[in-house]
Amino acid sequence: MEELLIGLDLGATKILYGLATLDGDILYKNTTPTNHHYGLKTVLDNMSRIITDLINTYEKKGPIKNIVIASPGPLSYPEKIVQNSPNLNWDRVALEKEMQKRLKRPVIVEKDTNVAALGVHYFEEMDKENLIYITVSTGIGAGLILDGKLYRGTHGGAGEFGHMVVKPSGNICGCGRYGCLETIASGSAIAQDAYKQGLFPAHVKGLGSKEVGELARQGNPLALAILDEAVEYLAIGIANLVNIFNPPSIVLGGGAMLGLQDLWLDKLSEQVINSAFPLNTKELSLKITKLGGDVGLYGCIGVVRKSYLL
Amino acid sequence: MEELLIGLDLGATKILYGLATLDGDILYKNTTPTNHHYGLKTVLDNMSRIITDLINTYEKKGPIKNIVIASPGPLSYPEKIVQNSPNLNWDRVALEKEMQKRLKRPVIVEKDTNVAALGVHYFEEMDKENLIYITVSTGIGAGLILDGKLYRGTHGGAGEFGHMVVKPSGNICGCGRYGCLETIASGSAIAQDAYKQGLFPAHVKGLGSKEVGELARQGNPLALAILDEAVEYLAIGIANLVNIFNPPSIVLGGGAMLGLQDLWLDKLSEQVINSAFPLNTKELSLKITKLGGDVGLYGCIGVVRKSYLL
Repeated sequence: MEELLIGLDLGATKILYGLATLDGDILYKNTTPTNHHYGLKTVLDNMSRIITDLINTYEKKGPIKNIVIASPGPLSYPEKIVQNSPNLNWDRVALEKEMQKRLKRPVIVEKDTNVAALGVHYFEEMDKENLIYITVSTGIGAGLILDGKLYRGTHGGAGEFGHMVVKPSGNICGCGRYGCLETIASGSAIAQDAYKQGLFPAHVKGLGSKEVGELARQGNPLALAILDEAVEYLAIGIANLVNIFNPPSIVLGGGAMLGLQDLWLDKLSEQVINSAFPLNTKELSLKITKLGGDVGLYGCIGVVRKSYLL
Repeated sequence: MEELLIGLDLGATKILYGLATLDGDILYKNTTPTNHHYGLKTVLDNMSRIITDLINTYEKKGPIKNIVIASPGPLSYPEKIVQNSPNLNWDRVALEKEMQKRLKRPVIVEKDTNVAALGVHYFEEMDKENLIYITVSTGIGAGLILDGKLYRGTHGGAGEFGHMVVKPSGNICGCGRYGCLETIASGSAIAQDAYKQGLFPAHVKGLGSKEVGELARQGNPLALAILDEAVEYLAIGIANLVNIFNPPSIVLGGGAMLGLQDLWLDKLSEQVINSAFPLNTKELSLKITKLGGDVGLYGCIGVVRKSYLL
């Protein structure tokens, strides 16, 4: 019987979970709302129930040797404590320990952007020793594969690309600095901008970057202007990364990026390649992940493959 | 007889050169003006003469097995071609090949910031697997040691920290972008600002960050304001790096930084630590290199030690 693993990608709005082989066959997948407003205990209990159900249903198909959870950051390493996630409203949650206690099994927790980067590394850009994965979703973050290995930095804090200041005269960020990229180009920043500038009526709640994209495709000038400003700063941030890392490949994903790729990708590529150093953009490819919204699940498989290679 | 090496640090204004052992004993050192305005051939011939003289004088003391040249960037890798150095007024100079042709011996050329980072890695922060060396001098650059190895990126373009845009509304940079860190916080930007704002009389040429520092120490409010703005943006840039790399250690050097450390270091540390992610600044140390102006020479020794370890 083939060895199986359970992967769970904990997002601010939804949890994506599934069962897969180490070769990358996803045998089952599903999503459920995160409902973090019900509090920490409810989210942890819910994740525990999902995983237990998967074990009970599928363990007869093959040994489930690994359970991997992709967690929002900042996540300390090696302790695996979620530091202060504004999107989940969590502070200092020892996620790996808590889940192991509930499941009475080993659990591997890794930062979501690192997980996604490993997914791309093992299932999409297999020949690249260096790789930067960038997610543009509620927030903005990056996962770094350098010299063929995941780079976490000293305490697990590497890759906080959303908190690169690109406009010091800009708005205050949740992190306390002004003009972080995340305050301009993230899904939530775009939504906030659309409400503030009157693109969305104030009484209709819950609209986001997806709806700004739809209006932009219909030619709405305000929607177009909001997205243009966001992508311009995103390009500044990515060109900054390119000048620092000189990577062969930048792979983009995350809900906002996937939803806006038809409006954004060409502009983004053009602006990055025109502005970063010629030496650094030689052969550089900027692309959307082919793994789409499942990059986190593939990444959970990548985490296990990585640990097998250590 | 102990094995010796010749190191040569080619700067925009001066060439530092010397003879050393692999253990880090500098047996001889000296400097000479670069005089790049005499043209490429003169600079190369001059370097060649310096190295030949050292060989003739010292080869009886021990075999001179390696000749290392630290070159301004951008420098392509592995071809070692200086791409377009505005400070030297060079474009596409195959430095390694040219010097080997002149000397009829193997020569190792490496980017100056990489060389300095290796110097710090082998002679100052020996216990650190990750390390960022930042130079603030005529320009601004960085050398990255990641997981114990020099990180060059795909074509040698990594570490171009001076070309991180931190103020998109700022001045145009030599690289074509607006508001690169180098246009605000480098030695040449500070000098230019001092002339523009009337701190220096227009008819007195050749004043620089050193003289701005002297005026600031005497309490000159304009000099203080110029240096404060520069260090504020430098802190923004460094905090951006800290959020991306989560390094244990940032080591600072370069002429402007060494000359202004009494005015800058405390402010810089405080601002970086207050603004980057708490996880990323836990245990972070920000310090001036103890190797001072000789960091490039120690780095040439580091380059050889590194190649011996490969």
